[in-house]
Amino acid sequence: MTLKPLSPGNIYVALVHYPVRNKNGDAVASAITNLDLHDIARASRTYGASRFYVITPLVDQQQLAQKIVDHWTTGGGATYNPKRAEAFKLVKIVEDLNDVLAAIKAERGMPPIVVTTSAQTHPDNVDFSFMRDQLKNRDVVLVLGTAWGLDKIILEKADYILEPVAQKSDYNHLSVRSALSIMLDRLIGDGI
Amino acid sequence: MTLKPLSPGNIYVALVHYPVRNKNGDAVASAITNLDLHDIARASRTYGASRFYVITPLVDQQQLAQKIVDHWTTGGGATYNPKRAEAFKLVKIVEDLNDVLAAIKAERGMPPIVVTTSAQTHPDNVDFSFMRDQLKNRDVVLVLGTAWGLDKIILEKADYILEPVAQKSDYNHLSVRSALSIMLDRLIGDGI
Repeated sequence: MTLKPLSPGNIYVALVHYPVRNKNGDAVASAITNLDLHDIARASRTYGASRFYVITPLVDQQQLAQKIVDHWTTGGGATYNPKRAEAFKLVKIVEDLNDVLAAIKAERGMPPIVVTTSAQTHPDNVDFSFMRDQLKNRDVVLVLGTAWGLDKIILEKADYILEPVAQKSDYNHLSVRSALSIMLDRLIGDGI
Repeated sequence: MTLKPLSPGNIYVALVHYPVRNKNGDAVASAITNLDLHDIARASRTYGASRFYVITPLVDQQQLAQKIVDHWTTGGGATYNPKRAEAFKLVKIVEDLNDVLAAIKAERGMPPIVVTTSAQTHPDNVDFSFMRDQLKNRDVVLVLGTAWGLDKIILEKADYILEPVAQKSDYNHLSVRSALSIMLDRLIGDGI
């Protein structure tokens, strides 16, 4: 089967809770942060992302995240704030990044480009303009780490490593919520 | 005394907890949100904002906010994460917007331009490019509302009303943390 490029590409957001690095650089699992789900779901919906994947292999954390999602999509939160429901409908909780890639491939016929993000520069960094061009005809999954960032096991899956948002600043310590919002604005911006 | 324009201008961030609107449009006081302080302090420090003013007239809320700031600037948090201390040093808790304007005027010799922000468009909106130009030689305070946005008492103090970040989207419901991050990126961006 010959696969045609998808035009225009979809953008997906994936927030990783394992494996991520702790303060000392060790691979750990981080806890779900309620406001990560709210802020990233709202930014994803605003900029037209197709789905927001929350990645954690810990069953109790998956259940916690699902409980939050259910509250805002079908529970009391959906009545209180229907706009929030629209954002939370984009959230899908999965065990690891391979599940994300398999789900997108099943839906779209070909796997997305995997783009990892970091606050550190890397010799192979691509810039925002390059990624905007890729999005013209390929699906892209933007992978973000919680805690002190993505572990190398995830970084090895990258097709591209996106340049840090604030690489020119003498202080580059944005929250993952801020960084993702700025990335979507730079990648989609006027396209919404 | 003749005042010279300031070159280049400083940018200040002000987060209003009173008066803001509730879901029904009434003027209320909102509660301090811990992650607002973290995310906006970090984004302010990253983009070189001169100060982050947290506005609330409620004494118990001022005390709560100050307790959080103290923890990260001089308490256990400062040892655990010195980078966070650098961001929290920008935070100043004040009673109302007039305090902000008076403090900046005392420090800089002239009051800043007051720029209000909203998710709704307004016939008098100015765009990001216009505000970037203003910043070349004037100080600017960017005023953001919590809850359902700034009350009209604050809006009346505006020199300019900034266009909404995602006005072209069919869903314009970013968190105040996301919106502020994107605003700083658009206003300062490459200037950091």
